[in-house]
Amino acid sequence: MAATPQHGEPPQEEGHRQEEASAVYARTDRTVPSRDRERAAYDRESVHAILDEGYVCHLGFLRDGAPVVLPTLYGRIGERLYVHGSTGSRPLRTAGRADDGMPVCLTVTHVDGLVLARSGFHHSINYRSVVVHGTARPVTGEKERRTALDAIVDQVVPGRAADCRPADAKELAATAVLSLDLAEVSAKVRTGDPNDEPEDLALPYWSGIVPVAPVYGAPQPSGDLRPGIPLPGYLVNF
Amino acid sequence: MAATPQHGEPPQEEGHRQEEASAVYARTDRTVPSRDRERAAYDRESVHAILDEGYVCHLGFLRDGAPVVLPTLYGRIGERLYVHGSTGSRPLRTAGRADDGMPVCLTVTHVDGLVLARSGFHHSINYRSVVVHGTARPVTGEKERRTALDAIVDQVVPGRAADCRPADAKELAATAVLSLDLAEVSAKVRTGDPNDEPEDLALPYWSGIVPVAPVYGAPQPSGDLRPGIPLPGYLVNF
Repeated sequence: MAATPQHGEPPQEEGHRQEEASAVYARTDRTVPSRDRERAAYDRESVHAILDEGYVCHLGFLRDGAPVVLPTLYGRIGERLYVHGSTGSRPLRTAGRADDGMPVCLTVTHVDGLVLARSGFHHSINYRSVVVHGTARPVTGEKERRTALDAIVDQVVPGRAADCRPADAKELAATAVLSLDLAEVSAKVRTGDPNDEPEDLALPYWSGIVPVAPVYGAPQPSGDLRPGIPLPGYLVNF
Repeated sequence: MAATPQHGEPPQEEGHRQEEASAVYARTDRTVPSRDRERAAYDRESVHAILDEGYVCHLGFLRDGAPVVLPTLYGRIGERLYVHGSTGSRPLRTAGRADDGMPVCLTVTHVDGLVLARSGFHHSINYRSVVVHGTARPVTGEKERRTALDAIVDQVVPGRAADCRPADAKELAATAVLSLDLAEVSAKVRTGDPNDEPEDLALPYWSGIVPVAPVYGAPQPSGDLRPGIPLPGYLVNF
């Protein structure tokens, strides 16, 4: 069930260390919520599934002591996440300057439904989220950098990285890649009907769930796409 | 075009101050991105439209000096955003303790498409996001607290707040509400085709956009919904 953790070493470079992996992430003070604890999960399978269903995260970091939250793409390889950006962008510059890495919080959220209770108080949403606390570090080895960039592309469309032009030297030099190990991490999931108070069940208000999910439309070729290039297999019925 | 700003005063409590509102938010060092500046927008109309299309934000704050990013619901009234939570939850407790409020960054992101370029480097997503920097402050007046809670419910389903039971005294006491003024704020928008390099146009790779949008399914009544309660008008064709 659990993937092999690779803390502190680049994946696929020094071979696969066959450590005994725990099926769950260790709980820490930061990953145990102060309430709704029954919604929290720490097993790798749940965490990986939520991460693998997404490709946009919200990355939190500090700038001049204040929090900044930016949406960005990510990729996962085993127990390590990667984000990337221009070497000129703020979070990447900040992380690159920091010898000890940059404290970050990386959050991925899927919204599954609107929860309409009889009371305003119990309105909510059904969702699945993963929150990763840790230290983002610049990835410097070219092999891991390339593997990470492929993982980010494949996170968006699985199979795509092998079907496009890889980064050339100039592009690689202009791209900063940060890694963040999955160590201090938890999932949080809400499912099911509204949690109405028993005494509210007789109220005359409709109550229930409005499901929501991202839907992908038919791929739209670029205006300058060369004639005769078919839609790739990984985009058919995407 | 622009709404009336209400910095520093609760909306709908002291009447509507008819200030001359600028159509744009003032740029600051934090809201001008270090790159892709052409994607940034500062006009209130664009910012409000992006905020109003969403209901889940990612709220960044500090805990013990490290960033934390959590998904949460929000509501907008004029130039003020509101978030809420249990008085026992961490960000709300933290803000409640801070006399000067809590530095936060609140980000709302809509993903509109996957951008598949001929090169891995130019892969991206089409998106619209708003990033708000500022100080979250506990809302203490009952009238503003109720108005804020209604706004959060109506942000999820417009019209719903008037069609459910309002918070009772006990629920209100258990709920913390934070406000965040729209002052230091920017939008960022990417649209259109991949930005391929001219020399890549001859490559044999498919290139284009995969559109994506949230789709809402048919409302599912609670298992314990009283018979005879029809689907409310605001949910028909939601």
